[in-house]
Amino acid sequence: MPLKSGFQTKTSIDKALDIFLSSFEPLAAVEKVKIEECDGRVLSGDILSPRDVPHYDRSAMDGYAVRAEDTFGGSRDAGIMLKVVTADRVNPGECRQVHTGSPIPEGADAVVMVENTEPAGALVEVLGQVSPGQNVGFRGEDVRRNDIVFRKGRQLKPSDAGLLASMGLLEVSVYCLPKVMIIPTGEEIVPRGTEPQAGQMNESNGVMNYLYVRRYGGMPGVHAIVVDDLDKIREALQEAAAYDLIVTTGGSSVGKRDLLAEAVASVGKVLVHGVAIKPGRPVALGYIEAGGKRTPIVCLPGYPAACAIDSMVFVDPAVKKLGHFPAARYRTDKAVLTRKIPSEAGYRTYTRVSVEDGKATPLRTKGAGILSSVSLADGYVIVPEDREGYDAGETVEVVYLE
Amino acid sequence: MPLKSGFQTKTSIDKALDIFLSSFEPLAAVEKVKIEECDGRVLSGDILSPRDVPHYDRSAMDGYAVRAEDTFGGSRDAGIMLKVVTADRVNPGECRQVHTGSPIPEGADAVVMVENTEPAGALVEVLGQVSPGQNVGFRGEDVRRNDIVFRKGRQLKPSDAGLLASMGLLEVSVYCLPKVMIIPTGEEIVPRGTEPQAGQMNESNGVMNYLYVRRYGGMPGVHAIVVDDLDKIREALQEAAAYDLIVTTGGSSVGKRDLLAEAVASVGKVLVHGVAIKPGRPVALGYIEAGGKRTPIVCLPGYPAACAIDSMVFVDPAVKKLGHFPAARYRTDKAVLTRKIPSEAGYRTYTRVSVEDGKATPLRTKGAGILSSVSLADGYVIVPEDREGYDAGETVEVVYLE
Repeated sequence: MPLKSGFQTKTSIDKALDIFLSSFEPLAAVEKVKIEECDGRVLSGDILSPRDVPHYDRSAMDGYAVRAEDTFGGSRDAGIMLKVVTADRVNPGECRQVHTGSPIPEGADAVVMVENTEPAGALVEVLGQVSPGQNVGFRGEDVRRNDIVFRKGRQLKPSDAGLLASMGLLEVSVYCLPKVMIIPTGEEIVPRGTEPQAGQMNESNGVMNYLYVRRYGGMPGVHAIVVDDLDKIREALQEAAAYDLIVTTGGSSVGKRDLLAEAVASVGKVLVHGVAIKPGRPVALGYIEAGGKRTPIVCLPGYPAACAIDSMVFVDPAVKKLGHFPAARYRTDKAVLTRKIPSEAGYRTYTRVSVEDGKATPLRTKGAGILSSVSLADGYVIVPEDREGYDAGETVEVVYLE
Repeated sequence: MPLKSGFQTKTSIDKALDIFLSSFEPLAAVEKVKIEECDGRVLSGDILSPRDVPHYDRSAMDGYAVRAEDTFGGSRDAGIMLKVVTADRVNPGECRQVHTGSPIPEGADAVVMVENTEPAGALVEVLGQVSPGQNVGFRGEDVRRNDIVFRKGRQLKPSDAGLLASMGLLEVSVYCLPKVMIIPTGEEIVPRGTEPQAGQMNESNGVMNYLYVRRYGGMPGVHAIVVDDLDKIREALQEAAAYDLIVTTGGSSVGKRDLLAEAVASVGKVLVHGVAIKPGRPVALGYIEAGGKRTPIVCLPGYPAACAIDSMVFVDPAVKKLGHFPAARYRTDKAVLTRKIPSEAGYRTYTRVSVEDGKATPLRTKGAGILSSVSLADGYVIVPEDREGYDAGETVEVVYLE
């Protein structure tokens, strides 16, 4: 029997993403998390302030709380003497020392900055006038009770957590994290901890994707290795349908041992098989139907470099959409190529480069040196579909995908 | 008694960082972590490959393993017929079907790609010649046993984890994460969960820094709130000296209730007090000495916006140095200012901006609206010390610090 080779079709990355991402909806499930655990989580509803901010009339300065009218006409040349009291009330002719944040005592309606005063025993000389309300933060001036502070869909960061805490909130409602089941497949794959024989290799794509999924924002689990058997693969897919997303590694191409697309088709639908991306063409996107539920699935190729790229290109946006996360945005840098990057028109090509002193050197991605080149890679140069590579000396953008 | 106000000195950010960071060394402690937990960790030693990669002579293609000399002279016009066997040995005139990754059977020394063959019953026609070694990945060709794969000091990422796993490693030695004790201070601060009275506020800088420190790469703990009492502060600092870094919030300025610098001086040394940064000038940097150990300390101001900036500017690099992490590198974007950003020459100014459609709008950082403006902020425009602000219409760099 002849070996099969090559895809009949290839879909552009943008079209493949469009087809795949429009086949499922973001997760509806929500949960409450403590403020200490809210970093990076996405609000499932608007946050209303539980109180006025500030929640009392407060001094905005270090100085003296006064009745503003007592200071009228005061200046450096003509200071006004006020009596310093410590009572909770300031009567005409009196003032009380305050710090930034101190409550404004009853009767007072403004604060004179300490820089505009001169102490004089039990009195203080006010060397400038203030108007009513000056240097006072009135209750609710910043945020009123029940004002919307953060909108639904916001991804929280540490300074947001500080604000939520300062408003008295202890927890917030957020969308649940997408649960992702990673299924390594391939009869040449042996578990980590087992010494591989000739023709075998230790499982590695599963653990790589486990860490990627955590970075994307999902909660990963890794399934036991599934051999290249249609029934066993199908069984594993159906079991995993309880998850929010399934990611398989290996067997995603069109060779006779590549059973993933067939398995997906038999329990769901293959939406895309073969994408115009290098490395990573043999990727399949679709969904599983089981228990009245559709679960999106990404079948990644087993070749590690292709597996990594397809994971970042397809699994990341899927996790982001499921979890209501904003799209990933990467740090980029300009660099000058030390060598030509060849690429085939019609494919988007991800070339690993090492970067030093503003110079980017493409790394080997074929044959020997595949694995060892990983240790030199800093980022990627992405050659778009409408270009045939970049020349040595060209200034390119290096994308730090990891 | 007059209120004290204002710093006598201010140190530039660069000099302050230089003084502070050179006052302590990176942590020496190491630990082993499983590959599943190695993402972001820093190797404490070189990683030597425990095996040859590949660990056997493997086919680099789908096709047929052959004795290269049997194919000499073969071409599209003059195919060479070989007998297809399934034995572990290929004799003259024979070949064996192989997949990418299959072991090369004994006797064979090259692989003919399937594209260059034509099946013919129990035979296969070879339509091109191959040279010895062609399409074969020889044992150890990529990495030899005991070759250095990753150098000490490398911060690991998911694709590294995949490589480590594929080499048979189950765990790696990494530097321990810096343990950071965060101590919120201030008698106006009440614990979260307690309704603040006039003049009081819920603790918020502690939880904000807890989340920041996790992002920086440290392991944070938060101490109970410490009131403005020199003995109590000193006691808390000495207790916390068992940690790798102490971060306090509040009381870091020079007012009469600002006791942190005095407390640090009494049990250690204040290296810098007052930095040319806005917001965030009232920051103190130094160390505590207790139990024969020096522990670096950053005293952050209590004003939330200043606290956040000083945390990112001073605490982050301290955690990075302690933990052997590379310096943080932020995503940046160009944007056109919609309004002037004023700044005082001699200070580095961090201005919160909202960004929309390539336009950056500076947000209020004083008076009312401080808190609510947080919800609008996307990034920061950093005005260097030698500039007095930026004008409306200028193109500036927005730094996404969070």
